[in-house]
Amino acid sequence: MILTVTLNTALDITYRVPELRPHTTHRVTEATERPGGKGVNVARVLAALGHDTVVTGFAGGVTGVVLRQLLAEIAAPGDGPEATRGTITDALVPIAGTTRRTIGVVDAATGDTTQLNEPGPLVTTPEWSTFMDVYGRLLREASAVALCGSLPPGVPVGTYAQLIREAHTAGVPTLLDTSGEPLRRGIAARPDLVKPNAEELAGLTGSTDPLRAARDARRRGARAVAASLGPDGMLAVTAHGAWRATPPRRLAGNPTGAGDAAVAGLLSGLVEEAPWPDRLARSVALSAAAVRAPVAGEFDRSVYDETLARVEVTEHPAAA
Amino acid sequence: MILTVTLNTALDITYRVPELRPHTTHRVTEATERPGGKGVNVARVLAALGHDTVVTGFAGGVTGVVLRQLLAEIAAPGDGPEATRGTITDALVPIAGTTRRTIGVVDAATGDTTQLNEPGPLVTTPEWSTFMDVYGRLLREASAVALCGSLPPGVPVGTYAQLIREAHTAGVPTLLDTSGEPLRRGIAARPDLVKPNAEELAGLTGSTDPLRAARDARRRGARAVAASLGPDGMLAVTAHGAWRATPPRRLAGNPTGAGDAAVAGLLSGLVEEAPWPDRLARSVALSAAAVRAPVAGEFDRSVYDETLARVEVTEHPAAA
Repeated sequence: MILTVTLNTALDITYRVPELRPHTTHRVTEATERPGGKGVNVARVLAALGHDTVVTGFAGGVTGVVLRQLLAEIAAPGDGPEATRGTITDALVPIAGTTRRTIGVVDAATGDTTQLNEPGPLVTTPEWSTFMDVYGRLLREASAVALCGSLPPGVPVGTYAQLIREAHTAGVPTLLDTSGEPLRRGIAARPDLVKPNAEELAGLTGSTDPLRAARDARRRGARAVAASLGPDGMLAVTAHGAWRATPPRRLAGNPTGAGDAAVAGLLSGLVEEAPWPDRLARSVALSAAAVRAPVAGEFDRSVYDETLARVEVTEHPAAA
Repeated sequence: MILTVTLNTALDITYRVPELRPHTTHRVTEATERPGGKGVNVARVLAALGHDTVVTGFAGGVTGVVLRQLLAEIAAPGDGPEATRGTITDALVPIAGTTRRTIGVVDAATGDTTQLNEPGPLVTTPEWSTFMDVYGRLLREASAVALCGSLPPGVPVGTYAQLIREAHTAGVPTLLDTSGEPLRRGIAARPDLVKPNAEELAGLTGSTDPLRAARDARRRGARAVAASLGPDGMLAVTAHGAWRATPPRRLAGNPTGAGDAAVAGLLSGLVEEAPWPDRLARSVALSAAAVRAPVAGEFDRSVYDETLARVEVTEHPAAA
């Protein structure tokens, strides 16, 4: 199975309003809830691709209860084409604090989203210790682990480095998808793959040239770097070469979850030991297909199939 | 006791952000929750004024559970000056649907609030029937009833008229604080008092002159009209005369809950059979004191005492 870690899970709430106008009152015309946090989205895409997944991290309070209920509903096996999909197992660690909410306010006219993210619950030392036991046990069964998203308050900034070292010891490859100081510290622990976007990469390295920045990130410790370039596709710099993957066309839609779909593509390619150009093509096609789906964690299967055949992958000459 | 009815209670969530910028992502720096809905706020102010209150309406789902927990915490007796306050009794009727949330996003720099209100849960016919039984029973003990706020989906638009007629039959005076069609229909059932703001009054009558509109509202059925004029105070048109109450100065702050504090002032004056000028002075002073409190349902006691002594009440000559 593939393990995804989401230390700061969220109950993702989407509100639809005719138009968001600051400092006025809005009647929400539609409110939806789904289990959120990057690792949860990644697991959903992986399961749709046929991989068995386990979701860990923390959940607590009434929002945690709702999150786990919604996750159980998604994990329940469906009929028809769903029969080929992988399982999603909930291995979230209960905490006394309350899982955060995120609110996405969608302007009905334009589709533009305004995001409000709560900071997340305080995790206590005994809760962290329980998590490390669970994590250690799950690593024994894992073919790969994805470490995803922000850290909740009270979790040390060097946490991802610790989780990467544990995975190394267990012989499990790691993918790190975070930003800021947790990314910087995590990279130093030599993860097998990091998936920053261009902005996160620039924040890390100081360089706005993605190729240069990705090479710099490798020198800082990442064994491979797959940088998402938004609608322009993806760039990978690895020990075996550097490639750039470009989608056939830019797709309009909801960019939330596109990065998580890309992570799922990279992970599935990793455990299947697919060649790098195939991993990138899969990742870019999943991103495009996620942009065309209404919510993060889902993707449009026909857009995926159609795009996968048409992603252009070119090798960069002589990786420095 | 004084009964307040809130058919569309809410879990009121307040988010503080540095500045709300549409179509960007915000990290919420502070999130607070409180039991909400106009009638709940009114009951809190009444209890602080020393009146025993009962809160009814509907509550359901996980947000309903949280709302009732928070209400119980507020209702728990405190020490010191709190010892003189009245009780708050929870007589909310449980429903299968989920109580709505409201999100108030406060710009930390300016204090301006952007409001997002969920529509509310569907109330079933058996749930409504249970509520009517509870309402009928509570009316027997009530010295006055306040009917507050919007109607949840599924509750007929003529509902307030029905509740007013029940109260008439039970000999209990009614105050109606709502807007739009529920206000129009409610007024036709001859409530003892309505408390629209100038905008609601204009919507009802078509007149933007509050005095003219208030007189029109009386002709439509309201026995008395107390119209809140925002920072300019309040205007009352009754069978015994018309008065205008003006606060000593405009106060900056949070206008949310000022209308609910005004309702509490009017109700407390009604059950104490205070003269109209005193009722208006109390109502305007409570509004001003609510503006100075950080959350709806609370007010600044020293601003109240200080303002009460200085509200100017003038009688309108010869009510037409």
